[in-house]
Amino acid sequence: MGFTFQINNDVTFNHDERLLAKAEALRPKLRTGTMEPVGEGTLTANSESLGGVTVTTDTSTARQSKPMKRRNSLILDFGDHMVGHFSIHIESVGSPMDAPLTLRLKFAELPVELSQESSTYDGWLSKSWIQEETIHLDTLPVDLEMPRRYSFRYAEIKVVDTSPKWQAVFSDARVQTVSAVESMPRETVSDDPEIQRIYQVGCKTLQDCMQEVFEDGPKRDRRLWTGDLRLQALADYVTFNDTTLIKRCLYLFAGMNTTDGRISANVFVDPNTPDDTFLFDYGLFFISTLSDLMNHEQDMEVLHDLYPIAKKQMDVDLDLVGDDGELKLGDTPVFVDWSNDFDKTTAIHGILVYALRQFIDLTVKAGEDAQPYEAKLSALVQYAQDHLFDKERGLFASGPEHEFNIASQTWMVLARVLDNQGNHDLMTAAVRELFPVTGIATPYMYHHIVEALFIAGLKEEAIKLLKSYWGKMITLGADTYWEAFDPDQPEYSPYGSTLINSYCHAWSCTPVYLIKKYLPMGR
Amino acid sequence: MGFTFQINNDVTFNHDERLLAKAEALRPKLRTGTMEPVGEGTLTANSESLGGVTVTTDTSTARQSKPMKRRNSLILDFGDHMVGHFSIHIESVGSPMDAPLTLRLKFAELPVELSQESSTYDGWLSKSWIQEETIHLDTLPVDLEMPRRYSFRYAEIKVVDTSPKWQAVFSDARVQTVSAVESMPRETVSDDPEIQRIYQVGCKTLQDCMQEVFEDGPKRDRRLWTGDLRLQALADYVTFNDTTLIKRCLYLFAGMNTTDGRISANVFVDPNTPDDTFLFDYGLFFISTLSDLMNHEQDMEVLHDLYPIAKKQMDVDLDLVGDDGELKLGDTPVFVDWSNDFDKTTAIHGILVYALRQFIDLTVKAGEDAQPYEAKLSALVQYAQDHLFDKERGLFASGPEHEFNIASQTWMVLARVLDNQGNHDLMTAAVRELFPVTGIATPYMYHHIVEALFIAGLKEEAIKLLKSYWGKMITLGADTYWEAFDPDQPEYSPYGSTLINSYCHAWSCTPVYLIKKYLPMGR
Repeated sequence: MGFTFQINNDVTFNHDERLLAKAEALRPKLRTGTMEPVGEGTLTANSESLGGVTVTTDTSTARQSKPMKRRNSLILDFGDHMVGHFSIHIESVGSPMDAPLTLRLKFAELPVELSQESSTYDGWLSKSWIQEETIHLDTLPVDLEMPRRYSFRYAEIKVVDTSPKWQAVFSDARVQTVSAVESMPRETVSDDPEIQRIYQVGCKTLQDCMQEVFEDGPKRDRRLWTGDLRLQALADYVTFNDTTLIKRCLYLFAGMNTTDGRISANVFVDPNTPDDTFLFDYGLFFISTLSDLMNHEQDMEVLHDLYPIAKKQMDVDLDLVGDDGELKLGDTPVFVDWSNDFDKTTAIHGILVYALRQFIDLTVKAGEDAQPYEAKLSALVQYAQDHLFDKERGLFASGPEHEFNIASQTWMVLARVLDNQGNHDLMTAAVRELFPVTGIATPYMYHHIVEALFIAGLKEEAIKLLKSYWGKMITLGADTYWEAFDPDQPEYSPYGSTLINSYCHAWSCTPVYLIKKYLPMGR
Repeated sequence: MGFTFQINNDVTFNHDERLLAKAEALRPKLRTGTMEPVGEGTLTANSESLGGVTVTTDTSTARQSKPMKRRNSLILDFGDHMVGHFSIHIESVGSPMDAPLTLRLKFAELPVELSQESSTYDGWLSKSWIQEETIHLDTLPVDLEMPRRYSFRYAEIKVVDTSPKWQAVFSDARVQTVSAVESMPRETVSDDPEIQRIYQVGCKTLQDCMQEVFEDGPKRDRRLWTGDLRLQALADYVTFNDTTLIKRCLYLFAGMNTTDGRISANVFVDPNTPDDTFLFDYGLFFISTLSDLMNHEQDMEVLHDLYPIAKKQMDVDLDLVGDDGELKLGDTPVFVDWSNDFDKTTAIHGILVYALRQFIDLTVKAGEDAQPYEAKLSALVQYAQDHLFDKERGLFASGPEHEFNIASQTWMVLARVLDNQGNHDLMTAAVRELFPVTGIATPYMYHHIVEALFIAGLKEEAIKLLKSYWGKMITLGADTYWEAFDPDQPEYSPYGSTLINSYCHAWSCTPVYLIKKYLPMGR
């Protein structure tokens, strides 16, 4: 994910060496591979593609460039999205090299990034994320090995300058790819080629985000967020099934909660550092992820270590719930979705119910007393049914303005506040009154809407949304799914520039989970 | 020096392993030292300084910067010109580092370089020479050690971006200086403080150009040229007296002459490569440098090894001299000076006479037969006296337009074509008719004019020119002498930008030689 900046200097964090040592022991040895470009590309206008540009690639191109001088440039197309380290061999031809060679290297996940000058970016998010380097080479030949890791499909090499007496020749470009997991063998999951393709792109997205932690995005924001972790873990169980990495991430969060028991919304590694950002729903998703893990693989050591941490977080959260079951958030920050243009009160109420159910499950598994939590759950559910559900409209309302929005309905379905028929009626009303979805720009929220449709038995609507949302990214040129995407305005960026968007983002890989869980082959 | 580009693809070079092995054995072990900044500087308008700007330095500044965020910048003033490797410690303060740090580092010999945006440079010389780097740091703290060598006094650090949540703090900036020689102890060479200062700046210039070879300029064009070597060697004898480096450079040229016997105007090292640029006068200066060395230190091994190489070059050159003593250059490229706005025929004739005299001296030392060369010398001198000297004007004329220029008079004096009285009369006429010098932009040519004045007995004129030329660079802010300087238009650049000029340039250090030789203390 990404988020408006919080700065909380007054928070104190635990640093539990025992838990962090377990996280360290679970650190994956990264798998590497070597990839070569499939050919030289040309930036071409194409109204079907994001930003109106695509790269047309000549796969017959030799592995060695033409001699290049001042202002010449070259696009190498590696054929698919990848995360790794770029290297290239460079020689000079002509007279002796009488000046340094200056190069600009730009690494792009999508052609739209190549079509914009980085110097024009002036958004509020750090421009340091733009994957562009300017380097000077004093002597040639050289095997240039770029020390930083990049996330890209296209590498653009621009010769800033040689001298009039010689040119630079580039050859043997390579990427040493890195991921915590090996590539998935190509697996047929659907007879529908559109669904099949949506699945494959999701697999690639997940793989490229699985590094030493589940990264938010390998291009930008390379850190670990709880809410994103929850979705990646769900996707991982049905694909790579690498539970080691999930456990490592849970231990990282658990080892660095606050002294009053809260889980940071995200952490950094190398060195292990919790961020001073807290989001009510993201704290709950630590609990949710632990519960999902225990349902997948009952590891009692992990449960024993992490249940007390989950309990502290839940207790802090339930302190905000009144006896009548009303959640009184005050000014506690929440996420739900990137957009702040809708009221989030009811959605958050639903998320608390959703996570509390999972916590009770964990409590039972841990052999602890679940009764007090059962009581809180009843009160929360009752409150939702009595005070948030508008029986006349057949929809949940949110906030003082009695607003009807899609997030509220979605989370109330996922929280199972109504029975199956109630959920079906609710989503039917939602489709009738609130579709087509507008104003939502994240695959994260779309995931929850699609899952709510499946749960409510609206399978056709779910498939339709899956195809129209993730499928449209593919039509626009996606090799991996994007951090942000509003189908009504494809070039929307939360940061004011398509240049800085992340086009391989953890939370958008969930079609693999939705397809495997709700559209199993042969049924 | 620097020069219009020649491309000669059809030349074949020798690569004499025996001579190059000797050059390698003479490679100096570089002396290193550690320098810290004297304070933080501020770019300030100052009409007295080159480009109208100077840096005002607060020497009370702490060794640690203030926290710096997007667009903040800092100038570190190291107090004097230096050549070496820059390092700095960088930490982040505030919230955890949630984005890479992007820095732009710019290394400047003079404040004028800091006052210009590098991106605006569009001259014909490679922009790769501009000492500017943009780097991304993914994690902090870091001890950043810049791998490339820079030539500078000022280091400007600009924070391109952090993120809104944290800032960068810089401390412990250092330069590990490199030179083939230790700093000169401060030596009093004159009671005249102006002359004393001119000498000191020359010493520093020479020191910073003495690296693994005598470099043209440590900022730009870091290679070895014969004509520049000759002047640096003369300056070295009276200061650092490191004859090892001179011998190494001579062996490099000798080991890579052409198969037809010509010495390249310049060579590159690492790997040893001769440039495909040839200049008639620069070939002769190999001979001249060898002769000066033998006069300073009679090393018979060097003479034995290099005399045959010198002889081949001289024989090739003398092929262009007719029986009547006329040098018929045709379209052979020559240098004499950067300017191409004057006729160089007579100056080159003088340079040949000058070098032939030295070659005859070498021939005698080598025990070879000098007689054929004596005959050529007589013919050349006779031709100059009969056909180039305009008795009525008392000046040497040059070229088909019978042009009178300062370069002709200067080189005829240095070549001793006239007797002492003749030289005195000639330079007196030159001062009267051709002074003030105009249209000359190189310390290289000014050096020869000043030396000709001294030789002709015009000591006061020589001192006046020394002070008005090199002294004016100091007034304009020089810590070391510049590659190019036209006192009438201080901001002149042969490359169309003061940004790319070299402000520490080998061939401009010669006041140390002129002062020591012609203005010895106590006389």
